[in-house]
Amino acid sequence: MSEGNVGLTVTKEFTFGGPTDVVTLESGRKIGPVTLAYETCGRLNEDRSNAILICHALSGDAHAAGYHEGETTPGWWDALIGPGKAFDTDRFFVICSNVVGGCKGSTGPSSTNPETGKPYALDFPFITVGDMVNVQRHLVDHLGIERLLAVVGGSMGGMQALQWVSVYPERVRSAIPIATALKHSPQQIAFNEVVRQSIMGDPAWRKGNYYDYGQPQNGLSVARMIGHITFMSDASMETKFSRKLKNGGYGFSLEDDFEVEGYLRYRGDSFVKRFDANSYLYITKAMDYFDLSGDLFLPGRQKIDTRFLVISFTSDWLYPSSQSLDIVRALKKRRIAATYCELKSTWGHDAFLVEVEEQTRLIKNFLRSIPAVPLELNRVSKGRMNHETAACSAESGGA
Amino acid sequence: MSEGNVGLTVTKEFTFGGPTDVVTLESGRKIGPVTLAYETCGRLNEDRSNAILICHALSGDAHAAGYHEGETTPGWWDALIGPGKAFDTDRFFVICSNVVGGCKGSTGPSSTNPETGKPYALDFPFITVGDMVNVQRHLVDHLGIERLLAVVGGSMGGMQALQWVSVYPERVRSAIPIATALKHSPQQIAFNEVVRQSIMGDPAWRKGNYYDYGQPQNGLSVARMIGHITFMSDASMETKFSRKLKNGGYGFSLEDDFEVEGYLRYRGDSFVKRFDANSYLYITKAMDYFDLSGDLFLPGRQKIDTRFLVISFTSDWLYPSSQSLDIVRALKKRRIAATYCELKSTWGHDAFLVEVEEQTRLIKNFLRSIPAVPLELNRVSKGRMNHETAACSAESGGA
Repeated sequence: MSEGNVGLTVTKEFTFGGPTDVVTLESGRKIGPVTLAYETCGRLNEDRSNAILICHALSGDAHAAGYHEGETTPGWWDALIGPGKAFDTDRFFVICSNVVGGCKGSTGPSSTNPETGKPYALDFPFITVGDMVNVQRHLVDHLGIERLLAVVGGSMGGMQALQWVSVYPERVRSAIPIATALKHSPQQIAFNEVVRQSIMGDPAWRKGNYYDYGQPQNGLSVARMIGHITFMSDASMETKFSRKLKNGGYGFSLEDDFEVEGYLRYRGDSFVKRFDANSYLYITKAMDYFDLSGDLFLPGRQKIDTRFLVISFTSDWLYPSSQSLDIVRALKKRRIAATYCELKSTWGHDAFLVEVEEQTRLIKNFLRSIPAVPLELNRVSKGRMNHETAACSAESGGA
Repeated sequence: MSEGNVGLTVTKEFTFGGPTDVVTLESGRKIGPVTLAYETCGRLNEDRSNAILICHALSGDAHAAGYHEGETTPGWWDALIGPGKAFDTDRFFVICSNVVGGCKGSTGPSSTNPETGKPYALDFPFITVGDMVNVQRHLVDHLGIERLLAVVGGSMGGMQALQWVSVYPERVRSAIPIATALKHSPQQIAFNEVVRQSIMGDPAWRKGNYYDYGQPQNGLSVARMIGHITFMSDASMETKFSRKLKNGGYGFSLEDDFEVEGYLRYRGDSFVKRFDANSYLYITKAMDYFDLSGDLFLPGRQKIDTRFLVISFTSDWLYPSSQSLDIVRALKKRRIAATYCELKSTWGHDAFLVEVEEQTRLIKNFLRSIPAVPLELNRVSKGRMNHETAACSAESGGA
């Protein structure tokens, strides 16, 4: 185990519900049993007050930190989770679970339907971000945690963090939604719809019943290529690729001439090997359905003492800072303590994965500010933003 | 014929070259004969000094203005071309031709290969924006026009305008490149590459030999959907669609829930009926190859008296204003007269097609400023921008 790394991690499974004890989804459909794949690092303290739930983005999984036996690539947020890191596993008990509907160990379209003995495929019920969170709540219950110190995530992970507070405010002491939104704009829906059409337009998709034949690789690969363009920024692509040619000149053919073309083809191809096409359809749909705008966010009139750190990145054009400001404004309206930081970055939406230093500083300061004992209701800010993180160079949310 | 409309127009053909008189392309490949489909409106004056060449964008054609017999939709730039309009056909002789490599009457991959009697498909040689312009030049010769009053175009049409001045500066008295660039950024190449992969990944593409079977409709449709997202802006999509649902609620299925999804599917499907998939591959590749950056723009040391009006739009994120500023800077470096206007618009890249009023005012003023007789060389601005269009609210190009 190297310094600052959590070392080997193992994916565990938690299964609940069953034929007589099904989970009712937001669509009204029922499902059971449900398995969640999850990993933990650090130790849960005696009063169970140091648990942090990390929620993953679209194609993420439960393996957020450390290494799996025999593998050389660490978890997807290893840079932020570990001893001494932003989510300091010497202090916190960190949980990350794969979402329901996914394909990384949690029940999803590629899982075996107990009624047929075959993969669910499109018989799998459509899920929402609300369902993802409700199902995660069962896991948190199972782990014996009444109140989470923090719920954290970037992109779709941030949606889950917002959803957690919206539905279970009393169970979340703080939330860190990063590079995310209260709802998808039509442009975000449009990109997801093209992604879905690319998959569904591939004859190898076979209306979702491709499990005996292999993935719809052309469609899924193109879908992921579209995604990668939106995850990067014009600036980061200029830095990384510019107009560099693979072979020094134009080929005057349909082969890839430019390095950026080769990169996209590679990312598309490798995604096919690691992610289920139907899960991609289901999860993008869940993101498009997500809507906590207006009165849908934190409904009711109860006082909420969850504290917020909202982070966005200057070059993120997929989840632009304006959407994070919408979150901050909604919090202000509900008189909820929020720190907002827009970090300078050229990395586009990928910044939440790669901007380690600034995020670490912000998150450490923020987590330090969460009181050791739960705040009494009513004690928090009176309608103004708290800019408690001195390092924050960003504009004020509601100002 | 309605007031202000050029009325009925007819697409004509001009064929040149042949087995013994082939056209050599920039790739070194040869082709012949070449047919160009073109339309004209207005009358060429006696000294042939009032001809304006309009260059179309990626999926455009020669039918820029007026109506075809029996059709109710006018040409793609009818709002700007006609009696009293920006390109006033009472004063100017307007020419628009379909690019070589296209599929709207000009020779392209779907044309019959005289050697085989079958469509060229991928035997068609790859073409460049330089080739498009060289071939257009044959048409301009054929029409007996020594010097064009203006070469104009948006997007890829603007690339052609830049190319015209770069290669034939003595034949172009003014140029109006709109919403365009001296070269594609890696992000623009990336979008085009995904478009191509979508088409080529469709098994119905059959390595380009689909002409006996029908278009690769899934791939081409998705390709066009991607295009449409990039042609619009976040703001225009918000205005047009917001999160409006087609059927009032979520369907919890893979059907289109949101109006924006239905719109994209419709645009994708209708494109399949009107545009050849191989032409889309060839033309996007030509755009990616286009590069007039650095010393490639206006090579040589001769004085150039072509005047420029460069236009961009605030919400165009596909061809952002920064790329138009690059053009203006390159012109300034070569001490060429340029007026630059960044127009406020929420329409994204589509603005060049739909922002009629402001463009009309700018273009009319600009064309009025072109001297009746060719400028003497050396008379134009000495290293500073001309901001002759009083209406221009934009920042200075080189400032």
